[in-house]
Amino acid sequence: MRCRAVDNHLKNGLKVGIGSGSTIVFAVQRIAQKGLDVICVPTSFQSKQLIRDNGLRLSDLEECPQLDVTIDGADEVDVESLVLIKGGGAALTQEKIVASASKELIIVADYTKESLDLGQKWTKGLPIEVIPMAYKVVIDKIEKSYKGTAVLRMAKAKAGPVVTDNGNFIIDWIFPAKVGNEKRDIKYWSELNTNIKMITGVVETGLFIGMTSRVYFGQNDGSVTTFPKQ
Amino acid sequence: MRCRAVDNHLKNGLKVGIGSGSTIVFAVQRIAQKGLDVICVPTSFQSKQLIRDNGLRLSDLEECPQLDVTIDGADEVDVESLVLIKGGGAALTQEKIVASASKELIIVADYTKESLDLGQKWTKGLPIEVIPMAYKVVIDKIEKSYKGTAVLRMAKAKAGPVVTDNGNFIIDWIFPAKVGNEKRDIKYWSELNTNIKMITGVVETGLFIGMTSRVYFGQNDGSVTTFPKQ
Repeated sequence: MRCRAVDNHLKNGLKVGIGSGSTIVFAVQRIAQKGLDVICVPTSFQSKQLIRDNGLRLSDLEECPQLDVTIDGADEVDVESLVLIKGGGAALTQEKIVASASKELIIVADYTKESLDLGQKWTKGLPIEVIPMAYKVVIDKIEKSYKGTAVLRMAKAKAGPVVTDNGNFIIDWIFPAKVGNEKRDIKYWSELNTNIKMITGVVETGLFIGMTSRVYFGQNDGSVTTFPKQ
Repeated sequence: MRCRAVDNHLKNGLKVGIGSGSTIVFAVQRIAQKGLDVICVPTSFQSKQLIRDNGLRLSDLEECPQLDVTIDGADEVDVESLVLIKGGGAALTQEKIVASASKELIIVADYTKESLDLGQKWTKGLPIEVIPMAYKVVIDKIEKSYKGTAVLRMAKAKAGPVVTDNGNFIIDWIFPAKVGNEKRDIKYWSELNTNIKMITGVVETGLFIGMTSRVYFGQNDGSVTTFPKQ
């Protein structure tokens, strides 16, 4: 099966960040199918296993602190600003670390993630990774300063909260909807991201801003659309 | 033994953050000696033990997300801007979380921490807590963008790097010295702190800015000096 992101952006010799989530499985399988000789740096335990299972070369950011390209998924993509919401799988911090070490970030997602107003398609809230002891302090500060509702993400296959691969908690923040013709451009999201990350106890937010160079959406009929418009 | 910070700022009924480090031992002993009925929230495993050992009431930020006052130490205090460097004990993140949840932060330190130019008294570098997988990426970005030398802090009683109470690593960044009459005021440190914390993979920096309301320095002769000047 073809994968436009792999076919258009990867070639032998590249150092490649490998994202997490369900769509990344196809990208990794395509790399293996083509026999591409790339070095793969994973963003989670899941993607590490995926790299190993497909017989690809595994590395890390200690050995390769500068990557050529990262291929990852997203929970919602604002196709005007190319701002992403990520973190449904609670790997946002590692994904952002790997993306920040890459020259390019290429996103593959299905058509349900395409958005013109973040929060409309991904309705579970903006994932925010926090130091466990600070979760209540952070929730209180976010709700007081920025309104909306912030909740500690609870696990489904263990008692208590989700614990990330970094040993932290995740807060999901349902931020307020856009009011009237309010312009939520890259500047808006960038300021919000800085404000939230600067709260002491916040490790990272699921807003990916100014990182993405291209997005591929798989459509229901098997076709692919891409942004920015070529 | 008297402790000006405790005697001047604590009274029955307060919720109090308890810092880490050697000077805090005297403050906690003074609280116990006076029989003050306060609720204590620790900033580290060390301060939790100290609270317990002195028979004080122990709580946490989940039960008490809003504190009245925190008493903590510092590795260096700029007495003009009241900007602190903390993190010699690798508890900077928890200390900053507790301080950020407090109405007031009171610092107790010995006279060797008094400074007019951060980096002159504390020469081991600015402590920065990072997600382990990102340490090399963060070191490279800091040295490239802000010069100086950043090193991974190595442990002394275990092989390999120091691991914080949050499971992270510490980078110590020897930042460049002041050039000529360069003004390193609160605005300078605040911008630097934002820039460093916004690097993906950074959890927190050891710069404490705009948090401290009073500093007490114990002098060699047993006297105490305090800032800001009263």
